[in-house]
Amino acid sequence: MNFYMPTQVFQEKNAVKKNGAKIASFGKKALIVTGKSSSKKNHSLQDVIDVLNENATEYVIFDEVPQNPSVELIMKASEFGRNEGADFVIGIGGGSPMDSAKAIALMIQNRDTTEEVLYQNLELRAIPVVEIPTTCGTGSEVTPYAILTRHDKNTKQSISHKIYPELACIDPEYLAAAPESVIKNTAVDALGHMVESYFNSKATDFSKMLCQYGISVWAENIPVLLGEEADFEAYDSLMLASCLAGMAITHTGTSIPHGLSYYLTYNKDIPHGKAVGLFLPGYLKVIQKEMPDEVADFLAVLGFDELEQFAFLIKQLLGDYEITKEDIEKMTDEIMATPRKLNAVPFKVTREDVEDMAAYLA
Amino acid sequence: MNFYMPTQVFQEKNAVKKNGAKIASFGKKALIVTGKSSSKKNHSLQDVIDVLNENATEYVIFDEVPQNPSVELIMKASEFGRNEGADFVIGIGGGSPMDSAKAIALMIQNRDTTEEVLYQNLELRAIPVVEIPTTCGTGSEVTPYAILTRHDKNTKQSISHKIYPELACIDPEYLAAAPESVIKNTAVDALGHMVESYFNSKATDFSKMLCQYGISVWAENIPVLLGEEADFEAYDSLMLASCLAGMAITHTGTSIPHGLSYYLTYNKDIPHGKAVGLFLPGYLKVIQKEMPDEVADFLAVLGFDELEQFAFLIKQLLGDYEITKEDIEKMTDEIMATPRKLNAVPFKVTREDVEDMAAYLA
Repeated sequence: MNFYMPTQVFQEKNAVKKNGAKIASFGKKALIVTGKSSSKKNHSLQDVIDVLNENATEYVIFDEVPQNPSVELIMKASEFGRNEGADFVIGIGGGSPMDSAKAIALMIQNRDTTEEVLYQNLELRAIPVVEIPTTCGTGSEVTPYAILTRHDKNTKQSISHKIYPELACIDPEYLAAAPESVIKNTAVDALGHMVESYFNSKATDFSKMLCQYGISVWAENIPVLLGEEADFEAYDSLMLASCLAGMAITHTGTSIPHGLSYYLTYNKDIPHGKAVGLFLPGYLKVIQKEMPDEVADFLAVLGFDELEQFAFLIKQLLGDYEITKEDIEKMTDEIMATPRKLNAVPFKVTREDVEDMAAYLA
Repeated sequence: MNFYMPTQVFQEKNAVKKNGAKIASFGKKALIVTGKSSSKKNHSLQDVIDVLNENATEYVIFDEVPQNPSVELIMKASEFGRNEGADFVIGIGGGSPMDSAKAIALMIQNRDTTEEVLYQNLELRAIPVVEIPTTCGTGSEVTPYAILTRHDKNTKQSISHKIYPELACIDPEYLAAAPESVIKNTAVDALGHMVESYFNSKATDFSKMLCQYGISVWAENIPVLLGEEADFEAYDSLMLASCLAGMAITHTGTSIPHGLSYYLTYNKDIPHGKAVGLFLPGYLKVIQKEMPDEVADFLAVLGFDELEQFAFLIKQLLGDYEITKEDIEKMTDEIMATPRKLNAVPFKVTREDVEDMAAYLA
């Protein structure tokens, strides 16, 4: 049993401003990695710029990270950062910029390598990474993972290197500027992390503790996710659940729902959290066959007696979607060829089980 | 709200042998810090020697750490380690050798300083520390604390520097060789960490999660602590509870029971865990006045309806002791002059409250 969570986490109102000196302490020139617009709307980018200025730390901005960033984008951004002399990276936003920040930090450190090393089993280091999350799903601020779109393989996959952020500054206020759909989809992603980590062959006491506590925190926000007005406390606990879920998957990885989701996101452009959520009821349905008491306990924390109630909640949160029979076939083919995801289930699953997981909400 | 727990933890059977290369990776020559006998009896010292030999890492042994090590002992051991050219420290045993290992690592790193720096607010680093716990109470393998006996102040006090171990290797088998009284006293110490961290003004969601889970793990072992035969699973969960409790106090510190205990240990030679346990029922009695629901929840996790049941358990575990009226007066005087411990209580406490805490089991 292993526990390793070296990232220093600060979660509070004005987390960036309160920890400015710490953020600026990781180098002389920061490469800020973010998307086109959300970090401007929620003021997180300006907060980071302000604290770097206050601490006389130089910076350059790369704000071209799209949803589902590709290997090609990482190479472009890391070349930019390297040419600008950046010696640490600050990721701001959801999973896309935060994951990108880690991969870019790796490629800046290893300047004489090519993109192939991203997916090679080598022991490579990265320049320091600071993460500022502005959604409530990825947990990337505390995970060592960096999931990129691989056009060479027509899918998404985490790079082979574990890059733990040095520092995560979580200001729940940033969530107030996020669209409702982003909050819902990312909250479902966090729930997926906890479901897939808790019911996982690699689960430990540490990871189960994180999931149990995280699910209870997440459950408090069901009314808000279904439309009740959110306050700071709600944003705070959604961010906390997401962070705890990230710590959990750091120790276990994810399982089949995440594996299935990559097909939908890559081929049908369905947002990540939504794509994961679609497979959570089906995952629990299959898990229930072997672990009925544990699934009942999980449902009880959410306030449910029956799996169908959980499935109904997920459908309410995710809205419309379309999955065809052909999609289910292809997704299942992909997973059956991915032992890592199959082995994450605490017992042996068949092709039929995986099809059941994929088809449950179709 | 802050979370920072950078120590890499491995808890498993043969944890030292399985992680030998990692243990040996922190330098060229280890200073092994341990007590006179227990690490020989439980084979932990030999396991460490074996993996250092296997990895061609040199070592020297300092095995003179007594219960409640003093500042003077630290200076002696660090001079020895420095002269021997040790570049990392391995602490093996209970809180005494593990805390000593951190303070010694600090003094080896800062070779041109004197013992005064131990208690000065400076930013000093230490050479790397690896910890191998063999009791189930201190949690020192994951805390940044190092509590030493200060003869200049007639008490025990943690040094001013936070030294996080790089690595903790926890093999529950080592506990099998510990005397029953050591298991009981140290388990009560771990319980104290959770009580004092949970009911603490600095408690956060992270620290409360660690305490809640840790108390539920601890509670499973009440029959074993009361005399039922222990198996590997029992040792495993006692070690886990102790480690979780250490992670909790890393974020909150301890409170008044620990503060009171130092008087008894220093002046009456009562073992640390026993001295702490004597004040836990009284602490909860006072906490109950302001937080009755939370105390009821805590007692419920242990399987109790009433505080008196908890007090009875503690008395069963601790056995005989003697606390006089004069002791209570003096302990209370000491605590009333220690704002740090008073401020750890989630509400304002009076001198009478502290006397009540001290006198409850007297």
